[in-house]
Amino acid sequence: MSVTVAVDALGGDRAPEEIVAGAVESLRPGLRILMCGPLELVTAELARHGSPADIEVVDAPETIDFHDDAVAAVRSRPRSSLVVPCTLVREGRAGAAVSAGHTGAMLAASLLHMGRIRGVHRPGIAVALPAQGGPAVLIDAGANAECKPENLLQFGVMGSVFAERLLRIESPRVGLLSIGEEATKGSSLTLEAHDLLAAAPINFAGNCEGRDALRGDFRVIVADGFSGNVMLKSMEGAGSVLFAEMREAAMSSLRAKLGALLLRPALRGVRDHYDPERIGGAYLLGVRGLSVIAHGSSSRWAIVNAIQLAARGIEEEVVERMERGIAAAGAAPDLQDRSPVRTVPAVVDPENGERLT
Amino acid sequence: MSVTVAVDALGGDRAPEEIVAGAVESLRPGLRILMCGPLELVTAELARHGSPADIEVVDAPETIDFHDDAVAAVRSRPRSSLVVPCTLVREGRAGAAVSAGHTGAMLAASLLHMGRIRGVHRPGIAVALPAQGGPAVLIDAGANAECKPENLLQFGVMGSVFAERLLRIESPRVGLLSIGEEATKGSSLTLEAHDLLAAAPINFAGNCEGRDALRGDFRVIVADGFSGNVMLKSMEGAGSVLFAEMREAAMSSLRAKLGALLLRPALRGVRDHYDPERIGGAYLLGVRGLSVIAHGSSSRWAIVNAIQLAARGIEEEVVERMERGIAAAGAAPDLQDRSPVRTVPAVVDPENGERLT
Repeated sequence: MSVTVAVDALGGDRAPEEIVAGAVESLRPGLRILMCGPLELVTAELARHGSPADIEVVDAPETIDFHDDAVAAVRSRPRSSLVVPCTLVREGRAGAAVSAGHTGAMLAASLLHMGRIRGVHRPGIAVALPAQGGPAVLIDAGANAECKPENLLQFGVMGSVFAERLLRIESPRVGLLSIGEEATKGSSLTLEAHDLLAAAPINFAGNCEGRDALRGDFRVIVADGFSGNVMLKSMEGAGSVLFAEMREAAMSSLRAKLGALLLRPALRGVRDHYDPERIGGAYLLGVRGLSVIAHGSSSRWAIVNAIQLAARGIEEEVVERMERGIAAAGAAPDLQDRSPVRTVPAVVDPENGERLT
Repeated sequence: MSVTVAVDALGGDRAPEEIVAGAVESLRPGLRILMCGPLELVTAELARHGSPADIEVVDAPETIDFHDDAVAAVRSRPRSSLVVPCTLVREGRAGAAVSAGHTGAMLAASLLHMGRIRGVHRPGIAVALPAQGGPAVLIDAGANAECKPENLLQFGVMGSVFAERLLRIESPRVGLLSIGEEATKGSSLTLEAHDLLAAAPINFAGNCEGRDALRGDFRVIVADGFSGNVMLKSMEGAGSVLFAEMREAAMSSLRAKLGALLLRPALRGVRDHYDPERIGGAYLLGVRGLSVIAHGSSSRWAIVNAIQLAARGIEEEVVERMERGIAAAGAAPDLQDRSPVRTVPAVVDPENGERLT
């Protein structure tokens, strides 16, 4: 079986060099890559790597950059290197789209062009947290500021498939983010979602709290996009303030400087492990195809990782498994969005809260 | 002017010794303390400090301990060392109650016995975060899992008074916890609350995010109790995992051990500054009196700090200022709780999410 991943050659701070180099490095038997970008530029860049036969260039002469308004850019530039991978997925020519470009634009393009998995009303953003003992998946990290219990149920199902198939965590323990461990604790949203998750065919382990996120007791953390985003950014903020304060303390005396010099190699691993830039990007789950949003600063190794995860996702049929999981959880029949306000998903960019749909 | 603070002599792991010692240390002209606990025991303990004239013993022969169910214990033991300080406030014999005992019980006792400030429907829990450049107040840290925009407006007003009068921060910048910095970002709750806060006579500076909490740009962070609690616990969790990982890394080689030994004095200040145990307890704002919930592990110095803050709060008339602030913000007229479900405040223990009212 051969799988095809479509890649935005111009996405990210280090494009096209690192993107193309990463794609070349990621090649292995059974993997084809559609490299999307201006034909001449991408062809020339690939020539520096011997023009591998398994990488095909798809002309995408337009560009979207970090300053652009996400939705407007996606609508007005359908031939951009960011949008074309998503349309290739819709057309069935690729199973996954990878971009290290504009996060909001990639979310918008995925939502607008890939379509949704049957039964899913609200796609959610999954991120892999650097928990102790291995990664944990947080879903939703910020796409849906307001959720219904059924949305959280679907996040639990999709997050479980993601953890099991992409992160290779067997029967991942699923936790529902709340403000108390017992089933009776939380808001009316979490109380209802708790019951739905408990009845679903996943390994639901009950409520978890903000302080559990990195401890590794839960491998899937289900949250509405508002509190999921608050959790993610609070941890990032606490980590960066702590590191900054320690750096300052380490410069405060000669003795401290010497200590820091000796300790540095040992601490580097810790810092790297918790570096938000290395958390590994975001995945929009619930669309018909895999949408991988790598960090803007992605090096070739981050791109290799993103492409290989995307390829594994296609091979493992995660989209199909999510669809079946949603149906098995009885989540699809309840999916009539009961809100009188919105009938289309309202998805926001988790980076800045911008409304994308 | 003389102010009176009622103290639970038996609250906390180190009671009564450290509580009584802290009360003695905190004495200064104009401060009276009502020390609540079993008469003989407290009298004997005070005798070891020369039985200061400004500390009066109020007999409270019953006890509530950490294993007790909060609400049941408060209801069934009105003469406990934890409940008596709250009833002394209601009777006007003290202006503030301080306990290092059962957090949930102290919240429940304060709500049940102190009564609420006029116009306030939902008291909120304020905690002082160890932000860069000085403390920042988070309100609500977990009492109200579900809030209305008017509740957030009141939290902003009460948090501002708290920051200004107790923490001595002039015209504190108030931020609304959301998932994007712009006014148009967030949930329907935060969008409505944003408009109310912007029109209030406080220094409202717009939305803030989880990563801003410790940076010091905002000195009051307004949140519904669910996301406030998620933020607080996520930061605590990230900090404790990072410190644990660094301790482990520091033991990984002889070189690292030596480095850690040299660096330790410089890092101790950082660790202490961010130690959640030292954050300084919680304050229930919105009740008619000051309710200070110190950490269970409080040393005499933590008790000195808690009592002196409480005394300052009485002198600065924070309760009266909050009442006037609520009225000035136009928050009181809107205070008819429009929810069809609850007409009494539903307050939960931020430690474990247990429903207290």
